[in-house]
Amino acid sequence: MNTDRLARLTTAMTEQDFAAVVLMPAANLRYLTGLTFHPGKRLTLAIFPANGTTPAFVLPAMELAQAQTHAGLSMSFYPWNDADGPQQALADAIADTLGSHTKGRLLGVEYTAMRVMEMRALEHAAPGAEIVDAVPLLANLRMVKDQEELEAMTEAAQIIDAAIYRTIAQIKIGMTERELSAICTQEIKAAGGEGESFDNIIASGPNSASPHHNNTDRQFQSGDLIIIDCGARYKGYLSDITRTVVVNEPSAEARRIYELVLAANNAGRAVIRPGITGEQIDQAARTVITAGGFGDYFIHRTGHGLGLEAHEPPYIVGGSTMPLPVGATFTIEPGIYINGVGGVRIEDDVVITEEGGKSLTNFDRELIVLQV
Amino acid sequence: MNTDRLARLTTAMTEQDFAAVVLMPAANLRYLTGLTFHPGKRLTLAIFPANGTTPAFVLPAMELAQAQTHAGLSMSFYPWNDADGPQQALADAIADTLGSHTKGRLLGVEYTAMRVMEMRALEHAAPGAEIVDAVPLLANLRMVKDQEELEAMTEAAQIIDAAIYRTIAQIKIGMTERELSAICTQEIKAAGGEGESFDNIIASGPNSASPHHNNTDRQFQSGDLIIIDCGARYKGYLSDITRTVVVNEPSAEARRIYELVLAANNAGRAVIRPGITGEQIDQAARTVITAGGFGDYFIHRTGHGLGLEAHEPPYIVGGSTMPLPVGATFTIEPGIYINGVGGVRIEDDVVITEEGGKSLTNFDRELIVLQV
Repeated sequence: MNTDRLARLTTAMTEQDFAAVVLMPAANLRYLTGLTFHPGKRLTLAIFPANGTTPAFVLPAMELAQAQTHAGLSMSFYPWNDADGPQQALADAIADTLGSHTKGRLLGVEYTAMRVMEMRALEHAAPGAEIVDAVPLLANLRMVKDQEELEAMTEAAQIIDAAIYRTIAQIKIGMTERELSAICTQEIKAAGGEGESFDNIIASGPNSASPHHNNTDRQFQSGDLIIIDCGARYKGYLSDITRTVVVNEPSAEARRIYELVLAANNAGRAVIRPGITGEQIDQAARTVITAGGFGDYFIHRTGHGLGLEAHEPPYIVGGSTMPLPVGATFTIEPGIYINGVGGVRIEDDVVITEEGGKSLTNFDRELIVLQV
Repeated sequence: MNTDRLARLTTAMTEQDFAAVVLMPAANLRYLTGLTFHPGKRLTLAIFPANGTTPAFVLPAMELAQAQTHAGLSMSFYPWNDADGPQQALADAIADTLGSHTKGRLLGVEYTAMRVMEMRALEHAAPGAEIVDAVPLLANLRMVKDQEELEAMTEAAQIIDAAIYRTIAQIKIGMTERELSAICTQEIKAAGGEGESFDNIIASGPNSASPHHNNTDRQFQSGDLIIIDCGARYKGYLSDITRTVVVNEPSAEARRIYELVLAANNAGRAVIRPGITGEQIDQAARTVITAGGFGDYFIHRTGHGLGLEAHEPPYIVGGSTMPLPVGATFTIEPGIYINGVGGVRIEDDVVITEEGGKSLTNFDRELIVLQV
């Protein structure tokens, strides 16, 4: 499997005239090698040359044994220790994979993962090389999920369906956002998840007007809208769901915005077919909310790709004009957020099939009015 | 408090001829503004100009309400939405803080936090500016902890002392690394922690030879060395402790390397005094292990700074020649790792006081032989 992935990477590099891609310890490296690392501040870079030379891995000496044991691909290792620093190891790895002539050659890196620290080290080790963004190339490689990946994502989605059901069932007046988040984490693990996809978001009452709320000690009250946004990891693959519930009786306005967001979620999922663009899906969902009079309160894109990363291409947003293929996986998550009042978001994970969009998450989308 | 921090930053920028520092949503931004963010892929940058203009904050529109509510400092906000992207907002923020002339001026950024994505956007918005590393300047600003910070770190250390005691007490033959990690996380929260400082490391038997082991489903066996490396977060500040225990009877070699690592930990903590360098502390600990015949197996530095980040300056390593001040906080964590056999690490958190080093973590350092 990984050999096929490497072959597809090499083909893509050759087509785009890249001399190599240089990867951080993150999703793309895992995809190609099976290796996962604690992210840290010590330089750790893998070089995949387009010329077919064995990939090189520059890494802290203390990580060497683990990398050698778990690498699912033949690699040459260039360990460095804390006293010497990484620069010589990186220079050796560049020389062995690309030769001494680097001027003007294209090195693809992950603009959304590589830090200035690594970029400066790379500029120094490969003089004159042109450092360009490899994220589109890599995203294209990973966008279509194979059967094994889809099975993991389906399982991750089923886990979060079960976990959010059990989490919602435990909501009580007086419970805090942080307490419910801890319950949610426990339920993710109890349902078989390896862990959370990201920090759970529990946004209650006025806090629900903030899409990326940081959980607080605010206690739930009667009349609250509560947004629960969480995900489960399974075999490294992620799910990501949001449901919004109301404590006791919703206001007329809360009910109104809930129905609009639900209709937008349904519209976004309904239009999916092979070849549709992210922009078209975004417009389908957004138009419902705009026509309903709340367009100014839908302040984010409709969705994002999902897989080994919680946010990856494709993005479901205006300007995203690439036709999407069968096997692409992403979220549909419209929302309305009104300062001082609250917000509603309903999010599902979908995959494009020949027959249209298929939802991986399937927990009840109707408004749940908790009687507590 | 934050105003004083901003004043110290402005003084440091002026001394080093920086026009501004441009910060990612991470520890330095929290230190200066109190703001914490879910890290994401949407460009989020705060500009602190040296000329005294109000700091500017470029951020996704969906984060605006939360930032306005929680900012502990007067800032001008430059929100951008998903359809437009961040470039114009960033250009406006640069123009309002630095004016139209940016060529040749120094912009300090965090080399260990800023990604190529943000750096390219900054290069575009501030043509000709020279982008340099601000981490040393910022680290210097944050290195001496004030009383409030030390209180939080002391509490974080007491929480992890309690949590590791209760975690070790639950070790059983047949339990897995992942199961013990879940127990450790629960105990951190039960003891009052906001969460983990980082993913717990539970490395058992031969896995203990890998300093940054990723937890597996390996079951504990009689004779195992088990390294437990974990930390607790309290008011945003971190603790970080490692203890190594043995299941039933240790081998003579395990006992020997334990005693050496313990002596090195004691030596590292004992030499601390105001004005000592990281290199001197590293040598004090390392010499013990080298003289004991295991120098080649101590494959990482002796320690790292600790505070809002799990790894921050000062680093306790060869080449670290800056005299360390009263109030600096860092770890002392020598280790010995033998492939095929196992490893030992003993880690404490210390603060430099006028009287010498003071350990914040104080859980028993003698070898614990579990009878299970």
